[in-house]
Amino acid sequence: MQALMQAVFEANMELVRRGLVLYTWGNVSGIDRERGLVVIKPSGVPYERMRAQDMVTLRLSDGAVVQGALRPSSDAPTHLALYRAFAALGGVAHTHSRYATAWAQAGEDLACYGTTHADSFYNAVPCTRPMTAQEVQMAYELETGNVIVETFAGRDPMATPGVLVRNHAPFTWGADAMDAVTHAVILEEVAAVAVAMRSVNPKAAPAPDVLVEKHYQRKHGKDAYYGQR
Amino acid sequence: MQALMQAVFEANMELVRRGLVLYTWGNVSGIDRERGLVVIKPSGVPYERMRAQDMVTLRLSDGAVVQGALRPSSDAPTHLALYRAFAALGGVAHTHSRYATAWAQAGEDLACYGTTHADSFYNAVPCTRPMTAQEVQMAYELETGNVIVETFAGRDPMATPGVLVRNHAPFTWGADAMDAVTHAVILEEVAAVAVAMRSVNPKAAPAPDVLVEKHYQRKHGKDAYYGQR
Amino acid sequence: MQALMQAVFEANMELVRRGLVLYTWGNVSGIDRERGLVVIKPSGVPYERMRAQDMVTLRLSDGAVVQGALRPSSDAPTHLALYRAFAALGGVAHTHSRYATAWAQAGEDLACYGTTHADSFYNAVPCTRPMTAQEVQMAYELETGNVIVETFAGRDPMATPGVLVRNHAPFTWGADAMDAVTHAVILEEVAAVAVAMRSVNPKAAPAPDVLVEKHYQRKHGKDAYYGQR
Amino acid sequence: MQALMQAVFEANMELVRRGLVLYTWGNVSGIDRERGLVVIKPSGVPYERMRAQDMVTLRLSDGAVVQGALRPSSDAPTHLALYRAFAALGGVAHTHSRYATAWAQAGEDLACYGTTHADSFYNAVPCTRPMTAQEVQMAYELETGNVIVETFAGRDPMATPGVLVRNHAPFTWGADAMDAVTHAVILEEVAAVAVAMRSVNPKAAPAPDVLVEKHYQRKHGKDAYYGQR
Repeated sequence: MQALMQAVFEANMELVRRGLVLYTWGNVSGIDRERGLVVIKPSGVPYERMRAQDMVTLRLSDGAVVQGALRPSSDAPTHLALYRAFAALGGVAHTHSRYATAWAQAGEDLACYGTTHADSFYNAVPCTRPMTAQEVQMAYELETGNVIVETFAGRDPMATPGVLVRNHAPFTWGADAMDAVTHAVILEEVAAVAVAMRSVNPKAAPAPDVLVEKHYQRKHGKDAYYGQR
Repeated sequence: MQALMQAVFEANMELVRRGLVLYTWGNVSGIDRERGLVVIKPSGVPYERMRAQDMVTLRLSDGAVVQGALRPSSDAPTHLALYRAFAALGGVAHTHSRYATAWAQAGEDLACYGTTHADSFYNAVPCTRPMTAQEVQMAYELETGNVIVETFAGRDPMATPGVLVRNHAPFTWGADAMDAVTHAVILEEVAAVAVAMRSVNPKAAPAPDVLVEKHYQRKHGKDAYYGQR
Repeated sequence: MQALMQAVFEANMELVRRGLVLYTWGNVSGIDRERGLVVIKPSGVPYERMRAQDMVTLRLSDGAVVQGALRPSSDAPTHLALYRAFAALGGVAHTHSRYATAWAQAGEDLACYGTTHADSFYNAVPCTRPMTAQEVQMAYELETGNVIVETFAGRDPMATPGVLVRNHAPFTWGADAMDAVTHAVILEEVAAVAVAMRSVNPKAAPAPDVLVEKHYQRKHGKDAYYGQR
Repeated sequence: MQALMQAVFEANMELVRRGLVLYTWGNVSGIDRERGLVVIKPSGVPYERMRAQDMVTLRLSDGAVVQGALRPSSDAPTHLALYRAFAALGGVAHTHSRYATAWAQAGEDLACYGTTHADSFYNAVPCTRPMTAQEVQMAYELETGNVIVETFAGRDPMATPGVLVRNHAPFTWGADAMDAVTHAVILEEVAAVAVAMRSVNPKAAPAPDVLVEKHYQRKHGKDAYYGQR
């Protein structure tokens, strides 16, 4: 697990380097599918003092701490719910980054307005429905995961690796912990562009489907031709 | 008082490091409740040259300078009014940070639109009523404190450790001087998110009460489970 | 070609230094008109590892790679179309910079609202028409170039060295690769000012023609008197 | 004149350090009233290579270059017009800083919305009227100065040390070159706050007169009590 702990630690520090977190906000996890173990950031530890060995290891099945002296991130149940429901996920990231959070507070799907979005997120990054009082009061973090899973019914989570939790903030994911962070960075930039776009034209329409399809496929489709292969 | 002077100095410098002040704008104070003494930044001294020993010590009861060669911050009477009215305050911070000031100029309570806000400020961060001509002309800084105190009638100032003074700027407070600065940093970020949210959706509604309650309590309630304890 | 490869490499790195690119987004090219060869950034290579010798050399006439081990930027066909149609171009730059992209997503010409714009771009920086499904599906990057060329029918591309590709992002150009980057930097700033202007006054009118003419001519006209000559 | 050249050079470099200029945009001058000489930045010289001895000395009466090998800033006639009309000016600064320029493009006075503004600018920072075609075509930079002077008819330019030239950008001034730059920095921040305020509430009203008066007087009036005296 040492390698995964190191990778999850590095991904958490990347969040800081990219300017996506203030104080101890934000957390990243990674999973070892074979062993059924999830490694996640501890709760409320300042990034300046955090070390790889502070990462906490949880059992995917029930969330029990199997290694680590510190308490796991309070958002751990959300991460676990996503790993259980989305078999392809290797990492999950959560931030309160400014513009993605603004969009989450606006309570609106972040539609695909251009190719910057389409290159990384297929169609809209959805905003979850309001949670019920019971969901919030009973097992809030677990239910946050469940409402995300519900939001992706019929959609491929790997094609749109992120979500806006209404009145809360974004969660993103990917092939591993660092990939989840990359999607957090891109979602923040895409949201920032869309905020500015709304200032220019509050009625701007989403990009045409054919363009969305093209940009997503040229990077991620079976005939992808972006980058070195 | 040396320790308090050092702590207040450090808190003032943290305001600068966090990018919340321009030139000599902004000031932070701390209190020694046992001795009834308040330590505050001197007025108009450049941060680059400021030293811990430049901090000015005032008597809580009447504001008289009991130690220090420099004049205290011109906002000292506001700080003193807050310490007198709110017994739990250990530190007070004042800035003209961009987005919190924008909201103060907009003359509107900063409602709780999401969990980023709810984690640190219970319900809205209120905007004070307009001051009367007499309040402004007679003892302006003292009356600024009084109007803040009036705004918190029936509310717990420690649950919502900040305020927007209308057409002016934010004041925040906390358990000590550094805690007041932390709240200044968070209020600025929360205000920035809310400004962007308004660009996305000018009619976005505040977060549901149940969510506000949950997030505040999970960090600050008697069964708080955020962080290491 | 060594000198051109070095110049194109430097221009690509300048995009990064100016904060216009995230990850591997963005690309710059330069042309050797005598030899009919275009040098462009490779596709998807991280800027931190990129070296001058990684630049890829293409034949202007057909886009064939004549030198370089890596694949050229996937946007190469757009660059080539611009070089073929606009004989005066020495360099082309493409970014997804935040505010220019916001304006491209808004689907609106960036009119000339002030002298900051007029100093570098004569009249509006146009936004291209929506591409047809066929254009997007068949030879997308080439057709992106063609629709830019169509947009400039009857206009001098050197007087207005940039364009907003609708629902996509800006392309800029200039006398050489670095000049194209300079125009990318200025277009981003001009777009940022215009976004802020719309927040102040959504109905702000473009600058009067006489002012636009004056500012453009004082820098670029035959009697230009700006700078040292 | 060596001391003034050094002071003007330093003030120009301060503009860069404060992030108010891109490339060679922006210029600062200072005046020696006794000798009737104005020292100003040269036109279009990169800041990285600029030295104190590159500053150009002009005769106030007719603008003739009396010392310096380089051409003066093309905006020199604007500076000279201000020095001639406003006897108390010791320095003038011109930038295209983002938010002040946005407000100039919006074509609106920057009303005094709060104390951040009132501390440095008495009442609104005015926006000039549109210039006539003749003014633009004949002696544009001189007429820019004249229209600023016209705008301040009946007002004290030292109480409100800045202006927004419509569809152009801000000019600020002060007791000396560095003071002019300080006002440029503050005007930019005040404009940024006001842009954000408009996103929050497009109908926000200016601050009450009594508050504007109080804040200006506590810093600048005869009974000023801000700072160390």
